[in-house]
Amino acid sequence: MHPLKVDQPYPFEQWWVAAFADEVKEDILGRKILGEEVILYRPEGGAVVALSGICPHRAFPLAKGCIKGAKVQCGYHGFEFDSDGKCVSVPNQKGVPTNSDLKSYPVVERAGLVWIWTGKAENADPDLIPDLDEVGLCDGWAWEQSPPIKVPGRFTLLIDNLLDLGHASFIHTDTIPGSEAVAMLPVSIIENGRTLNAQRIAEGFPSTNYKKFQFPEYEGEFDEHFDAEYYGPCLIRTGGASHKAGTGVYLGTQNFLHFITPETPYSCHYFVISARDFQVDNKALSQAMIDIGDQIAPQDVAAIGAIEQVLQTSDTLPREVSARADTSALKVRHLLESQIRREISARGTEEVPAS
Amino acid sequence: MHPLKVDQPYPFEQWWVAAFADEVKEDILGRKILGEEVILYRPEGGAVVALSGICPHRAFPLAKGCIKGAKVQCGYHGFEFDSDGKCVSVPNQKGVPTNSDLKSYPVVERAGLVWIWTGKAENADPDLIPDLDEVGLCDGWAWEQSPPIKVPGRFTLLIDNLLDLGHASFIHTDTIPGSEAVAMLPVSIIENGRTLNAQRIAEGFPSTNYKKFQFPEYEGEFDEHFDAEYYGPCLIRTGGASHKAGTGVYLGTQNFLHFITPETPYSCHYFVISARDFQVDNKALSQAMIDIGDQIAPQDVAAIGAIEQVLQTSDTLPREVSARADTSALKVRHLLESQIRREISARGTEEVPAS
Amino acid sequence: MHPLKVDQPYPFEQWWVAAFADEVKEDILGRKILGEEVILYRPEGGAVVALSGICPHRAFPLAKGCIKGAKVQCGYHGFEFDSDGKCVSVPNQKGVPTNSDLKSYPVVERAGLVWIWTGKAENADPDLIPDLDEVGLCDGWAWEQSPPIKVPGRFTLLIDNLLDLGHASFIHTDTIPGSEAVAMLPVSIIENGRTLNAQRIAEGFPSTNYKKFQFPEYEGEFDEHFDAEYYGPCLIRTGGASHKAGTGVYLGTQNFLHFITPETPYSCHYFVISARDFQVDNKALSQAMIDIGDQIAPQDVAAIGAIEQVLQTSDTLPREVSARADTSALKVRHLLESQIRREISARGTEEVPAS
Repeated sequence: MHPLKVDQPYPFEQWWVAAFADEVKEDILGRKILGEEVILYRPEGGAVVALSGICPHRAFPLAKGCIKGAKVQCGYHGFEFDSDGKCVSVPNQKGVPTNSDLKSYPVVERAGLVWIWTGKAENADPDLIPDLDEVGLCDGWAWEQSPPIKVPGRFTLLIDNLLDLGHASFIHTDTIPGSEAVAMLPVSIIENGRTLNAQRIAEGFPSTNYKKFQFPEYEGEFDEHFDAEYYGPCLIRTGGASHKAGTGVYLGTQNFLHFITPETPYSCHYFVISARDFQVDNKALSQAMIDIGDQIAPQDVAAIGAIEQVLQTSDTLPREVSARADTSALKVRHLLESQIRREISARGTEEVPAS
Repeated sequence: MHPLKVDQPYPFEQWWVAAFADEVKEDILGRKILGEEVILYRPEGGAVVALSGICPHRAFPLAKGCIKGAKVQCGYHGFEFDSDGKCVSVPNQKGVPTNSDLKSYPVVERAGLVWIWTGKAENADPDLIPDLDEVGLCDGWAWEQSPPIKVPGRFTLLIDNLLDLGHASFIHTDTIPGSEAVAMLPVSIIENGRTLNAQRIAEGFPSTNYKKFQFPEYEGEFDEHFDAEYYGPCLIRTGGASHKAGTGVYLGTQNFLHFITPETPYSCHYFVISARDFQVDNKALSQAMIDIGDQIAPQDVAAIGAIEQVLQTSDTLPREVSARADTSALKVRHLLESQIRREISARGTEEVPAS
Repeated sequence: MHPLKVDQPYPFEQWWVAAFADEVKEDILGRKILGEEVILYRPEGGAVVALSGICPHRAFPLAKGCIKGAKVQCGYHGFEFDSDGKCVSVPNQKGVPTNSDLKSYPVVERAGLVWIWTGKAENADPDLIPDLDEVGLCDGWAWEQSPPIKVPGRFTLLIDNLLDLGHASFIHTDTIPGSEAVAMLPVSIIENGRTLNAQRIAEGFPSTNYKKFQFPEYEGEFDEHFDAEYYGPCLIRTGGASHKAGTGVYLGTQNFLHFITPETPYSCHYFVISARDFQVDNKALSQAMIDIGDQIAPQDVAAIGAIEQVLQTSDTLPREVSARADTSALKVRHLLESQIRREISARGTEEVPAS
């Protein structure tokens, strides 16, 4: 599916952010993830569980059901499921029908995020979740999360968006101070086997009110990172480190963490966290980061929605051309295509058992 | 089409309720029935006629036309049709084109309902309409009709809904007094060749304000019927008789008559009448029945709409499981599948004439 | 595609009105034409250009971009295109990728209209634009244009509408004085190799307030033209000449020029101009013509939208029948089918070079 050269719209053997941890409470949160209805809740206030959101009895959406202790009760005919998804009670009969359990999704709660595994349960290795300490979701950093966003476009358009920060010079000039310059910065691609970082460094970046707000004790110019680092389809880190210009003296790091989760083939969920390792107790700065995020995200969402609209309604599309600045985005597309192809291939192998 | 195991979405060789009789006046009422635009009107105030609602000239919807005496005039170019559907006048020419008549549907007006036959006209035997005296649309009973409803879901979901009244314990607890208990009542299936009744009897049903309103002179407990009787896809009767508990002394019957008519493969019309044989002149009780119906129906409509949404938007659905309480609903599905298969088979026979 | 008996929904080798000339300014106007996104603008205030409206880089709609001098800049990553569509600048690199030019459409500005050619550029002969002098868009005439309209129906329904003015007697009786009579007037078809005129002449047409407003110095009856002249799918002229009844004395001509441009297979743009050769400086009369147009067009739009809805949502349609008054509309359909078939055939020839 465009822009990927594979038919399957997304990889399933993958951890994704299903929700911010504080979105999920004792009561049911319904969310569509990779085309499937999922319900999330905390049985008796404990750890989050994620179950299929469709009652196998009459296809009623369980998000409209209710919680009875640790159990989910379907809102239509009262089938009850325990927190493992096991059907434990059906009104007016002893026992329950066969095959009436809900699918239970492996879930890990980490760094204020609820991670869900959408592939085969036996493959759900928590070590496959990106290292969140590395991006600043750890002690000693300040984080702020923005409200979750639904993007009316396929998740690959959001990945494309983030992997080429040059767009900042065109759609974010009024919201990101200094972003005019980003598009013209040379891009270095750094691959380390786990991530791919499209790194731009603005040397001698002039001070702005924003920079003074971040680093009030420093008066000079900056060497400023505009990274776009791909940790898998679920996470892209942008932002990066600030140094005193020309000195290598480290001032601090401001990361924006973009957690992306396909909702349907044509839409995605978008969870943004900003994280910094300086002025971690400055509430005004924290609020400013939230406010900036609230201004930037709608600009990206509008751009992606406009492209999705073009993709869905145009009779003919021009053949896509790419610029040199797209090298990192194209490499990421290839990584994603390879990931999906490996999945398809692994399924094929299973279906043809060795003789 | 789910949940039926046949491709054709509904039976055509069938009487359906097209409208309440008092909805149809001298002017045109347009209504989509089994996927076809139909117009209903009373030529010069007389008996209802039902004609195809699309002008064969340029496909203008005749519901936007007007009535001239007993004739329908297309609102676009003025073709005129008499009440049999015969094209009788075309502006600016003598005579009319061949094949320009409207399809005329057999119609029977009975018990305040306009019945339409959607199959072959020669099969339109009025005796195939369910016996409406039997369900209380006759002298000696009080009836109240609710406003017609459009349900945003396939008609089979409404049949499923009604055939398992156990749902009352989950979605109607705030609107049907005593409904909490319904799901746990044992179900007996009574088949008599014409109807299938999924019968629940609540013995020793406690009195409630509602029961006292119905039977003010009786103080004790009730043996209470919660029937769900299938008269064909067009009519399901719910409710039933009340007796003095443990005595067999008959107090009266409160029926709810659910007339169901497919609108499209994914939506249906829903006409509800309540009928009782006790306190037939009690206007306050009549109004209360209307009020209760106005509260209950939206709950069912919301549930069916939610399921239809799941069916249409989920990439994968869990395999359907059924409970013991579904036995009657499953039997009704089989009846409906058989009815549709007979139709398909009869069409096949006609197309291959005996040599 | 109904009502045409060809699959291709419209002819591409054709001039169409893309916009009124005064709609197009230095800034970008985006418009969908024959299923393709197009942008129109005046480089540095000069002659209109029309370019593909989708950036070949990441499919962003260029209508959301901006103008830099004579160039269009994509609003997402800043690709720049000159007014010929040539990609001239890509941020952060020397040179531009191959195949990154925008399609440029041949455009002619004539008589206050922007004409666009949607076929092969080498076939874009401006002489194929209908003769606009002939219909009154020339010196000595007064013209008034109505605001452009989007019609929620296929363009062929609008052509059908205009070619049988008999519909005026049914949907325009409250907006066109004297229109009751139109449907009963005999129709003559006049073909001259370039146009097809379905001509109705009302002899002894009585005076009305409207006619007195047009010709205040004349008191008698009129011989009144209700022409519907097809100049190709892009233009139909209605209205026509008024004479003193029975004398042949010419009073003047009031034309309504209907410029039609497919937007998608199921919708079209509609540009209306009224033009007259009498009382050309009477502003009140000009305003009256605009006001009448503003009342008539929504009636046609509603009718066409209703038919489009029927075509798209009805499971079965009656076989179309035609009246004698449709002869001209049917001839026009044949002309249109032939035009499309010639296109398809010409494409076939190119693809199979002579051996």
